[in-house]
Amino acid sequence: MKKIISIDDFIKIDLKLGQILEVEKVPDTDKLLKLKVDMGMVLVTVGVGEEQKTEEKKDIRQIVSGIALYFEDIQSLVGKRCMFVENLEPRTIKGLESQGMILAVSTEDGKFSLLTADDSIPVGTSAK
Amino acid sequence: MKKIISIDDFIKIDLKLGQILEVEKVPDTDKLLKLKVDMGMVLVTVGVGEEQKTEEKKDIRQIVSGIALYFEDIQSLVGKRCMFVENLEPRTIKGLESQGMILAVSTEDGKFSLLTADDSIPVGTSAK
Repeated sequence: MKKIISIDDFIKIDLKLGQILEVEKVPDTDKLLKLKVDMGMVLVTVGVGEEQKTEEKKDIRQIVSGIALYFEDIQSLVGKRCMFVENLEPRTIKGLESQGMILAVSTEDGKFSLLTADDSIPVGTSAK
Repeated sequence: MKKIISIDDFIKIDLKLGQILEVEKVPDTDKLLKLKVDMGMVLVTVGVGEEQKTEEKKDIRQIVSGIALYFEDIQSLVGKRCMFVENLEPRTIKGLESQGMILAVSTEDGKFSLLTADDSIPVGTSAK
């Protein structure tokens, strides 16, 4: 069992609805998939000095995830809308940068599910 | 936007599939619901000294949540399987102890969704 956490511990985690755009097997691995994920819109600052302004752009991420063995056809993941940890420190896995983490539940006997929200919720919406 | 977190920040949060057993409006509030939630099985230590042993028992929680206005009929929540923060420090809300938190996504224009997993996943399964 995990230790008790405070509300502040929880609030700093950003869980966000994303949509999987592309899926590729990571070569020479059994489990790893490279996902391209739409995480909604993000505000970015462009230009310098007087020219500086804030623009909205699409937040497209590369996420590496060890979930390949749960799917007969990994392409069935394309288009899926599911929850991700949005503000996780990027990590390098097998030489690939992973910019977040997919959220899933799985059991010891091999059952697996992504975490999903209703279709009415737009991509980029955070959990509260 | 929330600050970047480490994997250790994330790992200490236990997100678990629960099932809502009972729902009641909290009197004299607009938004608050008192939920009775099945969080699966939990190991407890019973007895003292030589007699001490570990038993499995059902983990039934009371959770207070400000989601009433999102539902025309709050009884439609009964039976729903959705994700909860399992190891959150208990808090007292309007004199009621809340032993966890329901996870949901919502938008500024009033769209709302619980976070769900496939029916194949048993209640009490944690996210990884």
